[in-house]
Amino acid sequence: MSKHDCLFCKILNGDIPADIVYESPTAVAFRDINPQAPTHVLIIPRKHISTINDIEVADHAIVGSLYDAARDIAKKEGFSGEGYRAVMNCNKAAGQTVFHIHLHLLGGRQFTWPPG
Amino acid sequence: MSKHDCLFCKILNGDIPADIVYESPTAVAFRDINPQAPTHVLIIPRKHISTINDIEVADHAIVGSLYDAARDIAKKEGFSGEGYRAVMNCNKAAGQTVFHIHLHLLGGRQFTWPPG
Repeated sequence: MSKHDCLFCKILNGDIPADIVYESPTAVAFRDINPQAPTHVLIIPRKHISTINDIEVADHAIVGSLYDAARDIAKKEGFSGEGYRAVMNCNKAAGQTVFHIHLHLLGGRQFTWPPG
Repeated sequence: MSKHDCLFCKILNGDIPADIVYESPTAVAFRDINPQAPTHVLIIPRKHISTINDIEVADHAIVGSLYDAARDIAKKEGFSGEGYRAVMNCNKAAGQTVFHIHLHLLGGRQFTWPPG
């Protein structure tokens, strides 16, 4: 899928609405439409990167910046001390359905192990 | 916990053994002693960073490099196409027990949703 057909690129472009909760020069976060925790947001890079397999060395700082978003959102939503889980799925076995990398930030409840 | 008491820093220093599967200038990965999938490795930065809440802007490229390890290990273990899940827990609600950030890479099976 090219970035022109990408659902998340369309959200970034404002072509599809989303409940955006965070924006930085490199990342945007919005609420998952099928939340699995009291807070469940998807943190995405502004750059279209399809899967973890496609992350290049030049993207490392961008990928790291997704965790800035996680920390800031966790603090704002009041669970940074209590804790939270950050998950990135790659391809079908993990359930990736949108091929623009996204860090799932889940917080506001206890999490079990294994992680799915 | 300071880095001097940190289990993962002791593994990095060679003071405690681990089944190391990957090494780069910024990251090391070793097999989880309580695996939750056919492949379950912990990818850690060489730099001691306690939790996601402690990641600084200067650490972004290091954190991004953990995904290089994930991709390379997934390729080597034969499930990069099929897919895999990468999870980072922060603090108690998510089950973080070692306070040196670690990316759980799980592969070799199907994963369910929610992720714990």
